[in-house]
Amino acid sequence: MMINLKPGERLDDLQIKGYEIIQHPEKFCFGMDAVLLSGFTRVRAGEKVLDLGTGTGVLPLLLEAKSEAEHISALEIQEESADMARRSVAYNRLSDKIDIVTGDIKEAASIFGSASFEVVTVNPPYIAGTDGRQNPSGAKAIARHEVLCTLDDVLRESAKILTLKGRFYMVHRPRRLVEIITGMVKYQIEPKRMRLVHSYPGKAPGMVLMEGVRGGNRQLDVDPPLYIFDGDGKYTAQFNLIYGL
Amino acid sequence: MMINLKPGERLDDLQIKGYEIIQHPEKFCFGMDAVLLSGFTRVRAGEKVLDLGTGTGVLPLLLEAKSEAEHISALEIQEESADMARRSVAYNRLSDKIDIVTGDIKEAASIFGSASFEVVTVNPPYIAGTDGRQNPSGAKAIARHEVLCTLDDVLRESAKILTLKGRFYMVHRPRRLVEIITGMVKYQIEPKRMRLVHSYPGKAPGMVLMEGVRGGNRQLDVDPPLYIFDGDGKYTAQFNLIYGL
Repeated sequence: MMINLKPGERLDDLQIKGYEIIQHPEKFCFGMDAVLLSGFTRVRAGEKVLDLGTGTGVLPLLLEAKSEAEHISALEIQEESADMARRSVAYNRLSDKIDIVTGDIKEAASIFGSASFEVVTVNPPYIAGTDGRQNPSGAKAIARHEVLCTLDDVLRESAKILTLKGRFYMVHRPRRLVEIITGMVKYQIEPKRMRLVHSYPGKAPGMVLMEGVRGGNRQLDVDPPLYIFDGDGKYTAQFNLIYGL
Repeated sequence: MMINLKPGERLDDLQIKGYEIIQHPEKFCFGMDAVLLSGFTRVRAGEKVLDLGTGTGVLPLLLEAKSEAEHISALEIQEESADMARRSVAYNRLSDKIDIVTGDIKEAASIFGSASFEVVTVNPPYIAGTDGRQNPSGAKAIARHEVLCTLDDVLRESAKILTLKGRFYMVHRPRRLVEIITGMVKYQIEPKRMRLVHSYPGKAPGMVLMEGVRGGNRQLDVDPPLYIFDGDGKYTAQFNLIYGL
């Protein structure tokens, strides 16, 4: 299939099913967090999935490759990213399986309807609005900082969108775990499984993967820690096994 | 010093400062959780510490050995355990540093007064009242099951007892982490540091150590995981280093 890349864009191999993704290195490229989230998310055959804040659409592409989802929808507020995602979907001949919607997470439930998805995934901005220095690039700032939506927005809309017993999957920063857990409880997305991700053994975790169930009962399973690299700087066997693309 | 052990009691070496503790193996002996909690707790010179539900007083003895606390008080509802704790304190010539009070955690703030301690420690019953089979022995059931006090009781009384910015240290089960975090937030004991404890590398955590600060700001530090045993079943270097007695 022919592809027209715009200036600054490149085509990256996702190393699964031959899928490729259009990215713009000066704007935003997907990171380890999206790959980890795709490995943590459990999608059953025939389920409908919504990815909130999809960026260039890496999570829908990975989940389509790894699962038997009936359909994957994805929402992205930045038209430039959404356009790249749409062209990647078309290039991988997945337009019947994935659709990319331009829109605001804060309005997600009114865009997609209540109780309309069995699975919601999200790799939201990690940094609270007033923390740290704003990244000068608009696209990166919006992806990393809570400029356009907050954690509370994400949880509120996810709770509306999920079916009863529907599952919520998020990657975030451990330092915000208190807000994550109290916020999930507030919107009745009960935290059910948590995995902390450490770059190296002996290091504090840099990411947390969280699974919640809308209306689930109260009991959290904490998985063994996941180490990305071993002491020699190579990917660990557990990373290759569970998350290897 | 002479000691009169009652039938069934024995004297165990705490392997620190020559301290010994009276225990009754058929009733209840302290476990790894108390040792881990004593290593996780930070006491500054001159601070006053209260241990809630002290059992036979292992935590006050270990904290006295490891810190420069001005004074350590401890509360225990079971008179038989409190009596063993009191005799252990006397035997170790620590009656001027540690006092053991017989009483109910649910009334702790009225026993000790509001805002009266800089540090509160607690190794509470882990198992919610209705979960699992009750242990037939009364002493063990009270120590392990929420028969006489709940997590909510522990947090409510701790919040009253702590000074502003006073620190709360608890060991508990990871599966109850959602209740722990939402409960701490409810009583304004902000979770500030968390460490998950795994028996072996690659296993899910069996214990969680939690530090909270009364009236603290919102940001959680998650420590690297603590492994008790290595693959060969020996204590890990990190366990010996941090928690070695």
